[in-house]
Amino acid sequence: MATHPVPSDPIAAGATQRWVTGAIPRPYLLFLGDATEPAYAKTAFGLREWAPERCIGEFRCPGGTVSVGLPAMRPAEAHAAGARALVIGVANEGGIILPAWVPLLVEALQAGLDLVSGLHVALGDIPELHATAMALGRRLIDVRRPPAHLPVGTGQKRAGKRLLTVGTDCALGKKYTALAIARAFAARGIDSDFRATGQTGILLAGSGMPMDAVPADFEAGAAEILSPAASPDHWDIIEGQGSLLHPSYSAVSLGLLHGSQPDLFVVCDQPGRRHMLGLPDFPIPTIERIIAVTLDFGRLTNPAICCAGVSLNTAHLSEPEAARLLLSESERLGLPCADPIRGGARFEELIDRCLG
Amino acid sequence: MATHPVPSDPIAAGATQRWVTGAIPRPYLLFLGDATEPAYAKTAFGLREWAPERCIGEFRCPGGTVSVGLPAMRPAEAHAAGARALVIGVANEGGIILPAWVPLLVEALQAGLDLVSGLHVALGDIPELHATAMALGRRLIDVRRPPAHLPVGTGQKRAGKRLLTVGTDCALGKKYTALAIARAFAARGIDSDFRATGQTGILLAGSGMPMDAVPADFEAGAAEILSPAASPDHWDIIEGQGSLLHPSYSAVSLGLLHGSQPDLFVVCDQPGRRHMLGLPDFPIPTIERIIAVTLDFGRLTNPAICCAGVSLNTAHLSEPEAARLLLSESERLGLPCADPIRGGARFEELIDRCLG
Repeated sequence: MATHPVPSDPIAAGATQRWVTGAIPRPYLLFLGDATEPAYAKTAFGLREWAPERCIGEFRCPGGTVSVGLPAMRPAEAHAAGARALVIGVANEGGIILPAWVPLLVEALQAGLDLVSGLHVALGDIPELHATAMALGRRLIDVRRPPAHLPVGTGQKRAGKRLLTVGTDCALGKKYTALAIARAFAARGIDSDFRATGQTGILLAGSGMPMDAVPADFEAGAAEILSPAASPDHWDIIEGQGSLLHPSYSAVSLGLLHGSQPDLFVVCDQPGRRHMLGLPDFPIPTIERIIAVTLDFGRLTNPAICCAGVSLNTAHLSEPEAARLLLSESERLGLPCADPIRGGARFEELIDRCLG
Repeated sequence: MATHPVPSDPIAAGATQRWVTGAIPRPYLLFLGDATEPAYAKTAFGLREWAPERCIGEFRCPGGTVSVGLPAMRPAEAHAAGARALVIGVANEGGIILPAWVPLLVEALQAGLDLVSGLHVALGDIPELHATAMALGRRLIDVRRPPAHLPVGTGQKRAGKRLLTVGTDCALGKKYTALAIARAFAARGIDSDFRATGQTGILLAGSGMPMDAVPADFEAGAAEILSPAASPDHWDIIEGQGSLLHPSYSAVSLGLLHGSQPDLFVVCDQPGRRHMLGLPDFPIPTIERIIAVTLDFGRLTNPAICCAGVSLNTAHLSEPEAARLLLSESERLGLPCADPIRGGARFEELIDRCLG
């Protein structure tokens, strides 16, 4: 926020600080809170999947049931095993730190770990964390602080090419899809950057824009800053957020779309999900509907916007089930449909379409 | 923001403080900055029009040309005439305080006036203002600070009825239209509230939600808080913001629409405006297009959403020209079209339609 002074020492002890590239201590102990629904632990799963060398253990509250498959460790064990930071790997609805978490986070500070959070609430706003970090000289690092002095969006066309992942809901593969596309582009020698827009992506990439924490007036402007003008053949692969048809988060999605002015978008969906996560009254919109509204609104800042294909999260299906579904959806929609995590020929076809 | 502590003394000397209902000293000297385009001085015009008894003079920078028709006064004259606060009546694109304004604002503090701002930047973040206010015991009052601990939107239907004004662009009558409709409802004995979403509206109403300063993740949730559940025959008349088809501010508009879940909306337009304010490359969308996208997106949280009519800002037309235009647009669109500032039978017809 414009009213947060930028500290001269970017991650000083005891204070909640703006996050600075490369300054996050590692490796990590992943904190899973009291999560019982894996979709809420997407930060932990994302780090485990895309930065396994930085993750050495997991730690949860009594009552939590989610695991990312790492050894369970208390903070002292993790510190002895080399961990230097506890990363909060769960993102609940309000982005808050639950009271039940606080004693465990204090335990981590006492064990010698710094705390890293991508939640909306600042670590330093929790009095016990602030006091303990101050007393012990530990650092509280918040990656979800937008920079000060963001500009208002201009809508002006920028040089370079952009691809945005969009979704039918939250937490179904927009970040994974963008990361996989960026990796595939790199493998083909394409000059490209992954542009992170959420806490996990920012932790992975080392930079980015926490789009959901930006004041709404600056949402499109923040997206413009995130993917600046580049050489004409450079690609920015931009991590999408929320859904244009999500009753809670559509503002984030629309500002990101208008500011990103993507040439291409890939729709991300999880087959079989019936309603929006945590919102049983809201059915998942169809892929066709998301394509239609994304084209309709995206044309405002890029009249040439085009749907490159569909990314289906088929983690819950067997290999043959997934193959059948990807084939039938591809034929039904007339677009490449792939699961980037499975990869293979279908994913290469999606990449061909992006670059064709 | 969650990280701003709520001060125990809400408008203490020298510090930028959260605004508190009813605590703004009056009457006002309206500051017009260096504005040369009346549309950027909408806060000043709004206060002059809707709260004339609180406005005793105007004050501008050298080079500024906009007037709201009040006597020009320097701060010392205004204070002698009874003024107790200088209200910044201009809202430039970034919501910032220009360096050229600072000596004039310091002059106001020295003359005995408190400062009131609806800009994004906090008054207390300008060192000269902070130091002068501290030294003299003056207050710096920012009305554009959203409350801490906003909820995420739920999309759940609330009791009560809601009307939202929406626009083809910024600064063309959404606030005026909502105020006029609220006044007309009150005149007919309808139980209703004007719900302010911008700085001027909040200054006028004494409460509201600065929607454009809310972190994007909470945009819909903030709109839900702004118009809480009410008795079934109560109306909230909600001031719209921006436009769903505005490349800079669409995030604000969509979050407000989804969170407001309006039963009715009124489209606001300024006939003859060719392009979006400050964005010559972006033509104004048609009224029909705004109706279509508002219905399309609004149905997500209120399937019964309906367009009640159109509000045309005809300030630049003669009375007969305006009458002809309102008639032809009404016939063309098949909807009541009125200029609420002109009022009259056409406006009563629009109110009839709202209540019918």
